[in-house]
This record gives sequence, structure tokens and C-alpha cells, in this order.
Amino acid sequence: MTERRRITPVILSGGSGTRLWPLSRTERPKQLLSLTHVETMLQMTARRTTGAERFAAPVVVASAAHADAIEAQLHEAGIEPGTLILEPAARNTAPAIALAACAAEPDQMLLVMPSDHVIGDVAAFHAAIEKAVPLVEAGWLATFGIAPTSPETGYGYICRGEEIAAGVQRVARFVEKPDLATAESYLAQGCYSWNGGIFLFTAARYMAALDLHAPGIAAAAREAVASGRCEGGRLHPDPLAFGRSPSDSIDYAVMEKADRVAVVPVEMGWSDVGSWDALHELAVKDHDGNAHHGEVLAIDTSNCLIRSEGPLVAAIGVKDVIVIATRDAVLVMPRGDSQQVKRAVDQLKRSGHATLDRPC
Amino acid sequence: MTERRRITPVILSGGSGTRLWPLSRTERPKQLLSLTHVETMLQMTARRTTGAERFAAPVVVASAAHADAIEAQLHEAGIEPGTLILEPAARNTAPAIALAACAAEPDQMLLVMPSDHVIGDVAAFHAAIEKAVPLVEAGWLATFGIAPTSPETGYGYICRGEEIAAGVQRVARFVEKPDLATAESYLAQGCYSWNGGIFLFTAARYMAALDLHAPGIAAAAREAVASGRCEGGRLHPDPLAFGRSPSDSIDYAVMEKADRVAVVPVEMGWSDVGSWDALHELAVKDHDGNAHHGEVLAIDTSNCLIRSEGPLVAAIGVKDVIVIATRDAVLVMPRGDSQQVKRAVDQLKRSGHATLDRPC
Repeated sequence: MTERRRITPVILSGGSGTRLWPLSRTERPKQLLSLTHVETMLQMTARRTTGAERFAAPVVVASAAHADAIEAQLHEAGIEPGTLILEPAARNTAPAIALAACAAEPDQMLLVMPSDHVIGDVAAFHAAIEKAVPLVEAGWLATFGIAPTSPETGYGYICRGEEIAAGVQRVARFVEKPDLATAESYLAQGCYSWNGGIFLFTAARYMAALDLHAPGIAAAAREAVASGRCEGGRLHPDPLAFGRSPSDSIDYAVMEKADRVAVVPVEMGWSDVGSWDALHELAVKDHDGNAHHGEVLAIDTSNCLIRSEGPLVAAIGVKDVIVIATRDAVLVMPRGDSQQVKRAVDQLKRSGHATLDRPC
Repeated sequence: MTERRRITPVILSGGSGTRLWPLSRTERPKQLLSLTHVETMLQMTARRTTGAERFAAPVVVASAAHADAIEAQLHEAGIEPGTLILEPAARNTAPAIALAACAAEPDQMLLVMPSDHVIGDVAAFHAAIEKAVPLVEAGWLATFGIAPTSPETGYGYICRGEEIAAGVQRVARFVEKPDLATAESYLAQGCYSWNGGIFLFTAARYMAALDLHAPGIAAAAREAVASGRCEGGRLHPDPLAFGRSPSDSIDYAVMEKADRVAVVPVEMGWSDVGSWDALHELAVKDHDGNAHHGEVLAIDTSNCLIRSEGPLVAAIGVKDVIVIATRDAVLVMPRGDSQQVKRAVDQLKRSGHATLDRPC
């Protein structure tokens, strides 16, 4: 058996999503919360790619505001982190990944993963990674195409082209979030996957693609790392240099434009846990279809997601309702339309409401 | 103009109802809460019978646990209380009123009132009192018959007999809480009133009726007051003596059995605010039919009662729902069936849950 090159997980923890308000807060975003299991989303993400034979210590790219919490959570999970790269500013995924690529050896394989997704079938994920490795070693950019289970309009899609290796296809094109009719046709056609935001490539190949398609990002990241400061396992890229980087996603900046982009289609019980509805779907439910967390008293209640981080929640005679209670905020809405939480968050943002920021 | 004898309001504050949980608590029951107005139910009750020409300072019969709060609330409202009679034990209304009667002069007129009802038309209430006074001075027991507006099954009814003075009728009989069909027939017949638990009589007449129909209550109350201790406006009846009193309501113990019982039918915007539904009916509502209190963010929300004593409550896309949020408990239930809160309270009682007792 030939010795396998190790893959460095690059966990992107930059998000401060508000779709799970009032639980997620700027100071304690979704990836740092325990949502589907006792472990936090970050801990589960890091644990997913352990095993010294294949995986090196994970690099985490995050906001400085979360550095202590991230180190504490990885420590608690018994996972020794590699470098913790602290973004001086939020510049979306392409620059964040560029920081990790610049800090790595050129031929190092980087497995880029959001820090806040669920993967139910880790073995399937690992098998998909192995399918991609030979192409990645040959200089391809690889992505993982999630088998779609519904006509989701909230995800980007990947149109898969011809097979280029066993279980690997060339990306024909990336398509943006479709409308419902388009999403339904994608689902019917069978050659579309969801873009789950998971990527595998060498550091050198990613930087080369950036140099070609987004040179401003590449230059800013190189300078930010070169002029950065290392301290106790933390890399502080130079704020001025990184501040000059354009802000863009890896999809727009690189993947949609580059050649030699492969997709490994995979069914692995993936979810981005992007809404309270998604969490209800994932959760273990009682025989009335209720998912409860915390101190909940449910009477004549069915198909509800009721979650408390403190107060007792008593629900009587309610159906298909989401109730999320924290010490300082309570959300009540019908199940099935929980993306609407954004409307509440937008209103609260206008007034700079404290429940958006401070942990609950 | 002849000098009018003054009437002493006797405010019964013994209740520790749980129908408005999680807002009402054993330590801070409904009458001590601000529900329909800035003033508490107790303050509104006391204010309803002020005016030195007609009303003496109110006597309040209450649990010792609430003594400080009651004095503070009356003080805040600028109302000088008469005696505060602190029941050593809860023995229902007949013994509580007997304490007030024993502490009064025999010919003193006592206007007995629950501490937690709403009367929208105070002038109509006062006019009804004036109609009753001549009969009360002649030794009648008077009650006030609320004009029913719906076939309520939660109230006792009074069947009115022949007219015995202008606007005053003899009570033909008291009837217990009816089933719906019976309540509907009462409403149709037009000669039934709701029993609102408001009474007017002299202390002597009440004690005489008690002596006749419930001598154990009369004896216990007399001894409890005679052996009681007065201290700074508070009367502490003797606990041993009062503890020997049977427990009974004034309706069962006296009114249903006595002769010369009069009823003054009155339309006065009365409500016992006996449920969250009742509070929604009474409340000022926005153009979507929502009654909000506290920090509430309502989006696409209609016909809801949303009340917070602390946390921000965000409701998105909900209709006909009741949400009551305190620091330690949240209640969510559909509007229209809010008596069901009793089921939650019963379950919490079994576990001795803290949210039943301590103020929220």
C-alpha cells in the first residue's frame, strides 16, 4: 500500500447567519451551537475528518471574535487544531480559503468545508473524497455534488457533465439558486446536484486559479499571510493587506470560471441546517411528530419544533408550529415557512437589537 | 338631602387563580397584576368605590403572603386602606366575608367584591348600588345580576323573580354552572343573570344569616376576630379559631339558603377576566386584531394575544394564537380554548414547578 498524502481540513467558520435566530447570534453563530446533537456543528465538522492516516489537523478560518470559543470547543472534543486563521475582516469564502492556501505548502491537499453542515453518512463522504483525490493530485479542482431530494430554491446547483473517472464527472456548469419551476426540472433531469460548498484541491492549484480569475484576492491574501503574525497556533493575517481584498465567494471567483473542475456526486445525508424547518426534519421526533429540546410541556401538540434554552415552554393544542425560546427572545411561527425569520431579523437589525449579537 | 350612610367596600383578595398562568403566580396572583390597564386589578377594584360621601375606606381580606404588595399597591394608587384582614388560612368566601363582618359595626353596609374583575361602566355599578341600598338598610341581602351576553358555562346564574323595588327583583333561585344547552335556554328566557360575586348587606344581616345557615363559620369567624391581633392597620385573626371554620362559598353557605335575597340586574361592562381569551376580548387591538403588551415584533400576524414581561417575542405568520412570555415560562396556545391552560398548570402542580409560585 502506497503511503497516502494527508488531506488538511479547512473549516470555514466565518458565517454569522441569522436564519436560526434567536438561537444564533453574532457572538455565538450557528457553527458554535449544539443543534442536532450534543456536540456543536463545529465539533461535528472537525470530528468528521479525523484519522491521522488520511487527515492532518484541521485549519479553521474564523473571526477573531470566535477564536477562544473555537479553541475551547475543539479542545473539549479532543481535537488538536492546526492553525487557527483569524480573518481581520469578512471578505466571503474566496479570500478566506486563500488565506489557508497561502499558509499551506503548495502541494498540500485542502478539504474546504463549511463549519455548520450536517453529514449523516460520513463513510459515504470519505468514499467520495477518495474518488476525488487522484484528480486533485493531478491538478483538478474538485467539488462534491449533493444528491438533491427536493426542488430546493435556496441552493446553487451543479450541472454534471461527462464521467472523467470512476464516480467523478466534469462540472458542465454551476447554476445559481433557481426558481421553483427550474428547480423541479433540475430534479427531474437527474444530472443536477446541490452545491454543498465542500471542495478539495491543492493549495497551489487554488492559488493558480485565483491568480487567473481573481488576482486581487490572490495578491491580498499572499501579502496578508506574508506580513501576518503567528502567535500560539493563531495566524493573524495583516489587516491592511487583507482589507484590500475584494469580497467574493469561491463559486463566483473561481469555480464557475476555472477549467478542470470535477464533481463527485454523493448521497451522504447532507443538510445545511439552514432553517428551523430543516432542523425539525433532522430531529428525532416523538410519536406526535414533535421535536423538543429543553424544558418543554406539550399537551395536544403535534408536528412542532419546540426548543428552549432556559424558560419552560408550555404548548397546548398547537400544531405545526415552531417555538424557540431563549432568555431574551421568543420566536413563534408556523412550520414550513421558517425562512421568514429573516424578516424579523431584518427589522431587528434596523433598531440594532441586542438579541442579534449577544449570546442568549 | 338626608345624610347617606357610608358603604364599606370589602375586597376579597384570597384567590390564587392559575387561569392566567404563566403571568399569575401564587406569590403574585391575578388581582396584583396589571392586565387590562396600567393599574392592577386590585387598584382598579379599590378605585371603583372611592368617594368619601358614599364609600368608607376599603377593607381588604387577603393572604398574609400578599399583605405588603397590597398595601404598596393601594398606597401607589393614592387609596388609604381601612383594615387589611389577613386570613390565617384559605377557607373560601363565606368565612373571609365573615371576618370582615365581625370586624365591622353591625349596621355597617358591606359591599363585597372580588378583587380581580373588570367593570367598564362604573356609573352603572354605582346606580345599581343605590337601588339596593334601601332594601339592604331594611335587612335584605343584595346581589348584583350581570346581564349575560353569551351562554357562558363557567358562571353561576341567578333566576330573577318578582320586582320588589324600582330595578330590584327578588332572587327566585341561584343555579350552578349550567351545561351549554341550559345556558342557552337561560339566555333566551331573559330572566337570568350571571352571578358576578358582588354583594351588599349589613354586617349584622350577614352574620345573622350565617348563624342560621352556617353556624360553624359564624362562630369560628367571631372567635378568630375576638382573639385576633391588630397591628398597624392589619388584623390577624386567631389562626386556631379560624382554622376550625368550615370552608364554603358565600353562595352555598348563605345566599342560596337565606330568605329576603334581592338581585339588582345591571349592565356594566363586567368581566371576570377569567382566561387569556377574555383578556384578548377586553384588550385594545390593532387593525389586525392583535393585542400586544411588552416588546413584541409581529409580522403577518392577526387576531393574536401576545404578551411579554421581559423577552422580545417575535411572531411571524401566526393567526389566532396566544403567546404569553415571562422570564421563566412561555405559554403558546390557540385562541378560543384558553381554559386549557388549567391542564398545563395541573401537570406543573404535580411536579411542584417553580413557575407556579414565584413571581415572574
